[in-house]
Amino acid sequence: MTGTLYGVGLGPGDPDLLTLKAHRLISTAPVIAYPTLAGGDSFARAIAAAVIPQTAREIVMDVPMTTAREPAQAAYDAGAEEIAAELEKGHDVIALCEGDPFFYGSFMYLFARLSDRFSTEIVPGVTSMTACAAAQGLPLAARNEVLTVIPGPLDEATMTARVAQADSLIIMKVGRHLSKIRRVLEAAGLTERAAYIERATLPNELRMPLTKAPETAPYFSMILVTKGADPWL
Amino acid sequence: MTGTLYGVGLGPGDPDLLTLKAHRLISTAPVIAYPTLAGGDSFARAIAAAVIPQTAREIVMDVPMTTAREPAQAAYDAGAEEIAAELEKGHDVIALCEGDPFFYGSFMYLFARLSDRFSTEIVPGVTSMTACAAAQGLPLAARNEVLTVIPGPLDEATMTARVAQADSLIIMKVGRHLSKIRRVLEAAGLTERAAYIERATLPNELRMPLTKAPETAPYFSMILVTKGADPWL
Repeated sequence: MTGTLYGVGLGPGDPDLLTLKAHRLISTAPVIAYPTLAGGDSFARAIAAAVIPQTAREIVMDVPMTTAREPAQAAYDAGAEEIAAELEKGHDVIALCEGDPFFYGSFMYLFARLSDRFSTEIVPGVTSMTACAAAQGLPLAARNEVLTVIPGPLDEATMTARVAQADSLIIMKVGRHLSKIRRVLEAAGLTERAAYIERATLPNELRMPLTKAPETAPYFSMILVTKGADPWL
Repeated sequence: MTGTLYGVGLGPGDPDLLTLKAHRLISTAPVIAYPTLAGGDSFARAIAAAVIPQTAREIVMDVPMTTAREPAQAAYDAGAEEIAAELEKGHDVIALCEGDPFFYGSFMYLFARLSDRFSTEIVPGVTSMTACAAAQGLPLAARNEVLTVIPGPLDEATMTARVAQADSLIIMKVGRHLSKIRRVLEAAGLTERAAYIERATLPNELRMPLTKAPETAPYFSMILVTKGADPWL
C-alpha cells in the first residue's frame, strides 16, 4: 500500500483560517513537504508551525532565486523524488500550500510530477483574494458581475487590455510590479477606486488606498478594484 | 456596548472545510442569522448544523422566489432590523454564508444595511470555485494566467465576449442557464475542455466532462474551463 499525497491549502496567513480538515491532516502528518525560496524561511511552514508534530519528517524544496526555469525544475524534480520515496514506503505526505493549492500555487508542480503515480487529494483553502476583500470590507463581486484575477507579472499591454474589459478586478502578486500596475490603473482612470493590501490577515497587515501605498511592495500584496460592485439588492 | 456582526464563510459544503475561526464563532454564537429561499431549507444552516449551539437564537430571512427586487429587499430589510435589535442588546450575531461572504454571496445585502451602524467583521471562507478545481484535479491558474469568473445568469452576448478573452475560466451558478452556457462554449470551441461539477465536496457530488453532463443542473453547479493551464514548471 503506497501513501497518499495531500496538497493542503493553509489559507492566507492567519493560522485561525486553517480548515478543520487541514488542521487534522497536518497535526497527524508523518511527513510534510514545502518549498523555500533561496534558503529563506517558508511562509507555508510558518502558517502551520503550531500544528506540525515534532515527529514529522520535513522535506524541504529549496527553489533558487532566478527567472530561469531549469534550476526551479531541478528543485521540484528532487523534491518529488523524495516525496515519492516516502509514498512508496506507505507514508502519507502533506504538502503545505499557502492559500489554495490550485489558485496560483506552486503545488501544481508537484501535482504534475506525482499525481499519475500516486493517490493524490487536494484540500482547498481560503485564498488571499477573498481574505483581502474581507479585510478591506469590499465585496468582490455580486450578482452578474464578472470578476477578473490578474497576476502582477503580466506584461503591461496585456494587463491594460484585461483591465479595460473588467468589472471587478484583483491584481495578485504585486511585488516589484507596483509601478507598472499604477500606470495601468491610472491610464484606465481607476486609481481612485483601487485599494492596496499587503500580508492580509497577518499581524503586520497593511491596507490603504492605492494613492497612499508605499513605493515598494512585498510579493504578498494585492490590489482590489471594485469597479461596479453595488452591495445593495 | 453593542454587539459585532460577523459574516462567516462556511466553505463549499463539507463541514470539514469550515475554518477554525468559523467553527469557534458558530459554536459559541448567541444569535445566528441565515437566508432561506421561499420557505425551503437553508444550505448555509445545513453546513453548520452540527456546530450551532442549541441555545442560539436563529434569525431566518425568508427570501421569496421571484426575479423582482422589492420582495427580496423587504426580506433583507426585515432581517437587518431583527439583527440590529440583537446587536443593540450587545449580542454578537453570526451570519452564516455559503462559501465566502464577499464572493457572490448574499451577505453583502446585510453588510450594506448594517456595516455603517455596527462593528462588522468578515471571516473569509473556502470558495466553491477552488473546491471544484480541487475535486476535479484541475489547477485553476498558474504563473501569469488571467482567471475569469463568470456568473451563469450573464446574458449570452456578454458571456460570449468574456469567454473569448479568457485564459482559464469558471462559470458559477449554472442552474437553469446550462443550455445557454453550452452554446457559448461550443461556439468558442471549448466544449471538449469543459468540466461540469455539481455540489462539490458534498456526499452527492457529481463531476464529469460537460459533454456528459445532465440536461438540467442545480443552482450549486459550476463549469471549469482550463484553457491554457500548464502545471509543469
